[in-house]
Amino acid sequence: MCEEIRQQPEAIERTLSAEWPQAEKLRREFEARKIDLVILAARGTSDNAAQFGRYLLEITTGIPVSLAAPSILTLYHSDLRMKNALVVAISQSGESTDTNAVLESARGAGALTVGITNESESALARIAEHTLLVRAGREKSVAATKTYTGQLTCLYLLAYALGAPITRDQLNRLPDWTASALRLESEINTRAERYCFMKHAVCIGRGLNYANSFEFALKLMETSYVVAERFSSADLLHGPIAMLETAFPAFLFCPPGVTWKPMSEMLGKLREIGAESLVITDESNAAVDTNHKAKSAALTIPANLSASQTSNGKDLPEDLFTPIPYIIPAQLFAAKLAEVKHLDPDRPRTLNKVTQTL
Amino acid sequence: MCEEIRQQPEAIERTLSAEWPQAEKLRREFEARKIDLVILAARGTSDNAAQFGRYLLEITTGIPVSLAAPSILTLYHSDLRMKNALVVAISQSGESTDTNAVLESARGAGALTVGITNESESALARIAEHTLLVRAGREKSVAATKTYTGQLTCLYLLAYALGAPITRDQLNRLPDWTASALRLESEINTRAERYCFMKHAVCIGRGLNYANSFEFALKLMETSYVVAERFSSADLLHGPIAMLETAFPAFLFCPPGVTWKPMSEMLGKLREIGAESLVITDESNAAVDTNHKAKSAALTIPANLSASQTSNGKDLPEDLFTPIPYIIPAQLFAAKLAEVKHLDPDRPRTLNKVTQTL
Repeated sequence: MCEEIRQQPEAIERTLSAEWPQAEKLRREFEARKIDLVILAARGTSDNAAQFGRYLLEITTGIPVSLAAPSILTLYHSDLRMKNALVVAISQSGESTDTNAVLESARGAGALTVGITNESESALARIAEHTLLVRAGREKSVAATKTYTGQLTCLYLLAYALGAPITRDQLNRLPDWTASALRLESEINTRAERYCFMKHAVCIGRGLNYANSFEFALKLMETSYVVAERFSSADLLHGPIAMLETAFPAFLFCPPGVTWKPMSEMLGKLREIGAESLVITDESNAAVDTNHKAKSAALTIPANLSASQTSNGKDLPEDLFTPIPYIIPAQLFAAKLAEVKHLDPDRPRTLNKVTQTL
Repeated sequence: MCEEIRQQPEAIERTLSAEWPQAEKLRREFEARKIDLVILAARGTSDNAAQFGRYLLEITTGIPVSLAAPSILTLYHSDLRMKNALVVAISQSGESTDTNAVLESARGAGALTVGITNESESALARIAEHTLLVRAGREKSVAATKTYTGQLTCLYLLAYALGAPITRDQLNRLPDWTASALRLESEINTRAERYCFMKHAVCIGRGLNYANSFEFALKLMETSYVVAERFSSADLLHGPIAMLETAFPAFLFCPPGVTWKPMSEMLGKLREIGAESLVITDESNAAVDTNHKAKSAALTIPANLSASQTSNGKDLPEDLFTPIPYIIPAQLFAAKLAEVKHLDPDRPRTLNKVTQTL
């Protein structure tokens, strides 16, 4: 798992170079079509990527997005109206039976279809009209890491194809920023020791990093068997916060930009309760350290990831390019925690690499 | 909380009688409009109701549904295209700042708007073009119960308004079925004792009862501070199942119909791991008891809730009318568990009745 985590800067670079022409082709193709709705279908880690895609596409293109509930098609056989929809299935293996079934129904209903997968020869790549290929190389660890960031990369390309004002130059910063995040590895190794006896935790993110809170929690569940909750700061306040208690470990994604205000309030609330926080941030959000020293610590990516750092990022949300680098410390933490707990992060109990469900 | 749980048959009946004319009026109004998409906006318990609405509307009307991510409008100020959308905000108090903000943006963008709320004088009722009023009476307990089933009732009315082949006669069965579920109270009181020291749990549902797994978990978090996970059986298999261990308590919604096969497989898997299951079902699903005696028990609602029991329910999914009666045993269980744990279910720590978030 650690080895695959470290391969990510190259994997992202490879995916960007190889798939950029496809993104340009799709942009021309989509301009000619009336796309009223994007439906994203996925399971597991890929579903977390879809959750990111939902925010990315709505924020940068204005097209409403729905995350598919596969059972509506696979179990209830509903006739969903998808004629003017773009239906996108995301799957590492491309062999996820239910997301493939969604894509088949969508083609039958006249929708435009795209597959995002790591496997060019998979059933998904055959069913989808168009594909965006994740060029991460084979992923051996059951806990997905480089395919997740590869899927996020492809979702930026999809946003571009749907008209988002994102440039190739901006995306070209992603491999370096990912490499910066990897420099936190030894700091994380030290810090993970403290969490050896952690049985439960909560991961909190908002907006573009909401998906990362799900992905961090999933890594903790898969590799270290931690009962890891995940919430947006707003949803947590609507009830679940009652279960948090003193020393309840919380992990928060605190990028620059519009989500900082609610996340900062969340940090204050956690301090009030006495819950202990670990914050993932970068140098652009200097507010983190100074305001919240007590009962909280920060993993600061040694780079300034604000979108205004990219050539023409002024009109884009400041946190637009943070989700890929921000998940890296979380992946490293989950891998290290498994080790601290004397577990094997590459082979979690009960799981296989390809999951097929009804 | 217990008192309010017991008021539900009457509250549902009152809501149905008072709001049926509004549903008929909306049905005429919606026929004249082109509705391509339904967007549901809510937080907390109301968001669980929205999750149910998502399945109900897609299954019975074929119109795609998206669950709103409020921050896309409230924090990122994205120009979401909602012209041919019906945007529905759901809130018990009608004073949830972010869902109201979604509704205001939607009106500005030319969408049709509906509010589902318990409060006819609330901000939500003023902002929405149309309302469906939950006639549950004032809810004093912080943990919502009768407003949740009231919201579900209004969502059936909304489905009817959007063309679903549901009749008034069918909906008229709901109060009686809810009353049947309430007859489990003393059995639940006995059974809850066993869970006195439970610190974490997982609630599992699929399809139309997926939302109930979220709502059961939320009640356990709010009233008893249990770290309560919630998953569809398919999502659980894609990773999180690794964290389950021997004696990990699982709660499953097992209605008749298409979700039984995957739920039954889930039960088998839990038995393999040694996790202990408590199943909520009704007399229509006789398969539950016979196949899964070891390490599992069932709370069986003393009625046959299959949709084919309703006058013309033959073409409807068998589990169509199960979600309201099925949440009752879960609510009773959460209330009783709080008592067993010497907590006050009406006044959970950290929470207020009205939650306002950014």
